[in-house]
Amino acid sequence: MTHTVAILGASGYTGAELVRLIATHPGLEIGALSGNSKAGMAMAEVFPHLAHLDLPKLTTIEDVDLTGIDLAFCALPHGTTQEVIAGLPRDLKIVDLSADFRLRDAAAYETWYGKPHAQPELQAEAVYGLTEFYRDDIAKGRLIAGTGCNAATGQFALRPLIAAGVIDLDDIILDLKVGASGAGRSAKENLLTAEMTENVTAYSVGGKHRHLGEFDQEFSAIAGRPVEIMFTPHLIPASRGIYATAYVKGEAGAVHDALTTAYKDEPFLHVLPMGKCPGMKDVRGSNFCHLGVVADRRTGRTIVTAALDNLCKGSSGQAIQNANLMLGLPETEGLMLAPVFP
Amino acid sequence: MTHTVAILGASGYTGAELVRLIATHPGLEIGALSGNSKAGMAMAEVFPHLAHLDLPKLTTIEDVDLTGIDLAFCALPHGTTQEVIAGLPRDLKIVDLSADFRLRDAAAYETWYGKPHAQPELQAEAVYGLTEFYRDDIAKGRLIAGTGCNAATGQFALRPLIAAGVIDLDDIILDLKVGASGAGRSAKENLLTAEMTENVTAYSVGGKHRHLGEFDQEFSAIAGRPVEIMFTPHLIPASRGIYATAYVKGEAGAVHDALTTAYKDEPFLHVLPMGKCPGMKDVRGSNFCHLGVVADRRTGRTIVTAALDNLCKGSSGQAIQNANLMLGLPETEGLMLAPVFP
Amino acid sequence: MTHTVAILGASGYTGAELVRLIATHPGLEIGALSGNSKAGMAMAEVFPHLAHLDLPKLTTIEDVDLTGIDLAFCALPHGTTQEVIAGLPRDLKIVDLSADFRLRDAAAYETWYGKPHAQPELQAEAVYGLTEFYRDDIAKGRLIAGTGCNAATGQFALRPLIAAGVIDLDDIILDLKVGASGAGRSAKENLLTAEMTENVTAYSVGGKHRHLGEFDQEFSAIAGRPVEIMFTPHLIPASRGIYATAYVKGEAGAVHDALTTAYKDEPFLHVLPMGKCPGMKDVRGSNFCHLGVVADRRTGRTIVTAALDNLCKGSSGQAIQNANLMLGLPETEGLMLAPVFP
Amino acid sequence: MTHTVAILGASGYTGAELVRLIATHPGLEIGALSGNSKAGMAMAEVFPHLAHLDLPKLTTIEDVDLTGIDLAFCALPHGTTQEVIAGLPRDLKIVDLSADFRLRDAAAYETWYGKPHAQPELQAEAVYGLTEFYRDDIAKGRLIAGTGCNAATGQFALRPLIAAGVIDLDDIILDLKVGASGAGRSAKENLLTAEMTENVTAYSVGGKHRHLGEFDQEFSAIAGRPVEIMFTPHLIPASRGIYATAYVKGEAGAVHDALTTAYKDEPFLHVLPMGKCPGMKDVRGSNFCHLGVVADRRTGRTIVTAALDNLCKGSSGQAIQNANLMLGLPETEGLMLAPVFP
Repeated sequence: MTHTVAILGASGYTGAELVRLIATHPGLEIGALSGNSKAGMAMAEVFPHLAHLDLPKLTTIEDVDLTGIDLAFCALPHGTTQEVIAGLPRDLKIVDLSADFRLRDAAAYETWYGKPHAQPELQAEAVYGLTEFYRDDIAKGRLIAGTGCNAATGQFALRPLIAAGVIDLDDIILDLKVGASGAGRSAKENLLTAEMTENVTAYSVGGKHRHLGEFDQEFSAIAGRPVEIMFTPHLIPASRGIYATAYVKGEAGAVHDALTTAYKDEPFLHVLPMGKCPGMKDVRGSNFCHLGVVADRRTGRTIVTAALDNLCKGSSGQAIQNANLMLGLPETEGLMLAPVFP
Repeated sequence: MTHTVAILGASGYTGAELVRLIATHPGLEIGALSGNSKAGMAMAEVFPHLAHLDLPKLTTIEDVDLTGIDLAFCALPHGTTQEVIAGLPRDLKIVDLSADFRLRDAAAYETWYGKPHAQPELQAEAVYGLTEFYRDDIAKGRLIAGTGCNAATGQFALRPLIAAGVIDLDDIILDLKVGASGAGRSAKENLLTAEMTENVTAYSVGGKHRHLGEFDQEFSAIAGRPVEIMFTPHLIPASRGIYATAYVKGEAGAVHDALTTAYKDEPFLHVLPMGKCPGMKDVRGSNFCHLGVVADRRTGRTIVTAALDNLCKGSSGQAIQNANLMLGLPETEGLMLAPVFP
Repeated sequence: MTHTVAILGASGYTGAELVRLIATHPGLEIGALSGNSKAGMAMAEVFPHLAHLDLPKLTTIEDVDLTGIDLAFCALPHGTTQEVIAGLPRDLKIVDLSADFRLRDAAAYETWYGKPHAQPELQAEAVYGLTEFYRDDIAKGRLIAGTGCNAATGQFALRPLIAAGVIDLDDIILDLKVGASGAGRSAKENLLTAEMTENVTAYSVGGKHRHLGEFDQEFSAIAGRPVEIMFTPHLIPASRGIYATAYVKGEAGAVHDALTTAYKDEPFLHVLPMGKCPGMKDVRGSNFCHLGVVADRRTGRTIVTAALDNLCKGSSGQAIQNANLMLGLPETEGLMLAPVFP
Repeated sequence: MTHTVAILGASGYTGAELVRLIATHPGLEIGALSGNSKAGMAMAEVFPHLAHLDLPKLTTIEDVDLTGIDLAFCALPHGTTQEVIAGLPRDLKIVDLSADFRLRDAAAYETWYGKPHAQPELQAEAVYGLTEFYRDDIAKGRLIAGTGCNAATGQFALRPLIAAGVIDLDDIILDLKVGASGAGRSAKENLLTAEMTENVTAYSVGGKHRHLGEFDQEFSAIAGRPVEIMFTPHLIPASRGIYATAYVKGEAGAVHDALTTAYKDEPFLHVLPMGKCPGMKDVRGSNFCHLGVVADRRTGRTIVTAALDNLCKGSSGQAIQNANLMLGLPETEGLMLAPVFP
């Protein structure tokens, strides 16, 4: 049986990635697409790579017809999403890809986003969308808050270590290398090709990045005490992909065991043999995340690396994984596309 | 019903691309993989992006067990392929991705490849593998000769124009921009990242590129008289993709009509509206080819552009398209993966 | 003796490139910098790579103090430049990098730029700034119109062939591959890293690109009859550089002779031995242009390739070369920086 | 007065970079070039970007004529350098760019390079070439051991902090992002464009990288006790450049003070205002190193970033800086070339 979905905010990169994945998903079909700035246009005009698909035209969010829609993906900008979702029918399942419902705590939301949450009841209802760790809640949920793409990468690397108690909670450092598409299809000077080729820049350094709100929330919940990591993302000359390098204090063997045990039945999380590191390109275009563990020369210090595709496993692939659960479909349906390498 | 295939020469890029595509192909499964230089290794060691798949180990070509194999993809180096295929069972269907059987004429082969063909009977038997133009022969064929990736791109842009008689046959210029993977996974100095970033170089300039043998053969056959184009490939800083710019003498309207008429029912060949040009990235990772036609300011001159992914539509995707026909499967099966953009 | 110069419009890429070159130029020093959108800022804030230099602050164009300035480089947007230059002192030497004064003919200007020229007297006074071909006029000139970067590349490849009468004037095709910086430091969607990696797109196809106005003007003047070439630029994933591939009808030997004869004493124009093609990266960051000639397999057809750095030899390096002549300095002064490879 | 230099091993990237820099150096000229694998060739054949220079032909190392040579740069492979330098005249000044003389301690050398040093007397004589910290010894030295490029980057970020006693010596983490040219002009599969675009990979993880030998030697000497940092380099899709992100325990104010104080008179080391981070491209093609300090949200934790060009400030620029000192030239002579951005 096929379920009909809508994509609200389909004119951005995560919207296009949803369409790409649904195109070969046997259980989903697209019933409506919105994109305010491109309303009236065909998707093929906005994203010519989707020209082979028979898709509805883009409408404004106001004009979306949700009749017959089972589930809506919201790929709208942060902030405005709260209002839009508040206005959607209560019987519509929603997977949100924005940052609006990732933080459960009202004060934390205000701290990281600079204003009070406008929909505290929805905030309370929302389920954090890191599928591998919230599977049951997601399956039963109505409103799922897709995680930040950096937040997903770091959590895949670190959650099992915190849960297993094998690392020092006060000395966790996470260094990220991220491609440009994470910043969306927005024309900003620092994202220009002329600026980015042969360049690397650290940004949101020193604890300013909003995905830290997610790390704090999740890691502290697992540990049962406050955990604050150091986290530095770097923009690198690539369009897709996140590569995380985590520096932890703990025995490498115990770290590797914690990851392999936690992920032994996970279809998308692949832990490499001890001593190996993944390549960012090895997961490009896919819903897989590869992880590696290497012991440092100094006893008790370990490096954990993780690679995923920010638009797929970090956003839209995760969203479909969650939608599969919510709709009673096999979790991996439509998501087993092999990475595109080279 | 699932057909079992072998990939001979699976340790190169086209071999890996075959595995990628077969991974989500409902009608094919992989029964054997060979790769002499990597014999004994798991595919995941050679190509970590395929780690999620349950694949046979790589063997030498001598040790391949072809029991139960319906069709073999040969992704072996040029030259040695002839011998290997001569030694394969006569009841095995073969899709060859090398250059060994692309030219039907013995003299032409010797001209372009510098030595006589060692298997003239196989050469006579082989069907040229440009699916859209040799469909019936391919469906009935036993040995299919996959085309050159540059040759495929140029032919998609030009064949209908020659067939329709709408361009001057003596003034066809084809300028190609190609990514590095077309040269294979071979460690050559000019393919190094340090050499290629921010670089463009023309190569095999002036009529030296072997794919000209295919252009000559095919265009002359269509025209019923000798046709020799000018053809200049350029290496650009990208890993995948071919972008062709053809300069022809003919009315743009007639050119556009010829392409749209020829390809109106083709699932993978997409002609853009008059005046539009494709982007190379719009077909990345897919079996699609996008084509565009623009009239020059000078009456009677037209620019035709075409973009495809050299490893997919230009090689391994084409190979599977042909295999589908040979095995009685729907031609598009397993090949409708949407392009990966951005 | 040191000459003091001003750079009007120093907050763009060509402005920054002027500063880079002047930084090690023994005969020039910077007396004033303007940049309206960044007025009040230090150059190091706008371009951190210039942080080691002691530079005047950016001012608005109105606030520039031209006292003691010998020569002004105008790196302002097209269109507004006319007004600005009209308001500058008559005894100030000016090298303009905009498109405003490249076309000598009022009607041609209106055709290509869509409106009448506002300063026809200045237009009449301006000298076309392709140094190697207008040396004497430039040395005596007051207002020099820097050429388009694409226009410079194509002219270096083709002017001597037209002048020597060795090619068919009605069949000249020019295919360009250009890096992103040619479009300036403007935040446009199609210039984003996420869009451009692994991408190639043709643009301004079919005779729409404004640099054709320059080609028409110059080639027709040399030939003494109208010459209209076909010209297609392509955006490639690089930040700097232009690579031209010209297809001409003429004997390769005569073509190579024409280029080597014309350029035998030119310090910046380097013709490779017959049969060789340049690499775009071989001139990166420098004022050199490398050219190559290859005979096609068909008699009477020749491929000419040319590579230069759009921001240097194509714009700011050319501007300084012209300024050197205007100020009585050695033409190569400050411009012999070797290319940065790899 | 001009000094004549030889470059032994001129056919690699650091050799070419030496030639590039010497090309506009007023006090140096090139008297001899060796390159065994390219002996007999012109430099322009090996590196076409140097075609405008009048250079001696490449010879074998045996055939180099050192008559009249004041100083030799050795850019030879590790290991063989020891023999070559042992055979050079004792009155020849030498700047070595290999790893052979970086470690002062015989045991340390054997640990990191896997065999005993063959020339212990030369090892004892060699001066570590990190100019800013060994100026006097270098000026008086005969044999200077150029530092590793990663080692230089990390030391610029960390030496003043260790010297000033403002950070915890047992918790220093150094995460590096490096371009491909650091691996030299060697055709290796992992350095291919097809492999590296859109890719990031950590390598020599866990304390295996040989530059750790330098960090250990230098940091321990400064501290007066053993210091062992964690160090992870990552290969990123760029040709030049190193970007270091160091995580230290110490107050950001004290860290920033230590760097600004140490480097206040340094012409090539530029410390950004507190809270700012450099961009890797801001130093491309130059001898500058930009450094930044940002306080973490957690008191007592600080992030230090540093960017330099591995081939210039990290290798050949440093070598010339040292040669300037050894020859009595101004230290910055020929090295003030502004970075090439964009």
